[in-house]
Amino acid sequence: MQLLLTYDVVTTTPEGRRRLRKMAKLCEGYGHRVQKSVFEIVCDDAELLTLLDGATRIMDASADSVRIYRLPANGFAAVHRLGVAEPVPHTDPLIM
Amino acid sequence: MQLLLTYDVVTTTPEGRRRLRKMAKLCEGYGHRVQKSVFEIVCDDAELLTLLDGATRIMDASADSVRIYRLPANGFAAVHRLGVAEPVPHTDPLIM
Repeated sequence: MQLLLTYDVVTTTPEGRRRLRKMAKLCEGYGHRVQKSVFEIVCDDAELLTLLDGATRIMDASADSVRIYRLPANGFAAVHRLGVAEPVPHTDPLIM
Repeated sequence: MQLLLTYDVVTTTPEGRRRLRKMAKLCEGYGHRVQKSVFEIVCDDAELLTLLDGATRIMDASADSVRIYRLPANGFAAVHRLGVAEPVPHTDPLIM
């Protein structure tokens, strides 16, 4: 499935900035960063559960916010992009 | 249609911070702010064109990024929310 993950992490404290870095690193393991706090993710149900678990462990649930939207099948291709937003090749091989 | 709009505006300059304020104000006219730079929007094709035009006029296309995703019919209801993310009553009357 195609998902869009967005997060707000409160970064007014060193601890918050640490959470932000960890959240970004977690999400980078699941998809493509298309904006500072927006990721396009292709995964299955099991991976989504693991992602949700990881995000829950990192975040401060009383301050931060994570939202994960399910997109339609052509969701990444149908996006309106303005400015420096670039299309992301989800089907290309991942260069490690 | 149900849309999710996300933006990145470079705020390292006073001009950038001004663009950010204008972008937020524009988007608030079309939908509900669910994170700092994420809006849930319900609109028709004509309103989407007006929104795209407004965003294009505000943004610096060489620095900023706006992305608008179309969600499935139940897109807002099916979101996974973690932390302080709250559901938004899109069908309730708007109190002015």
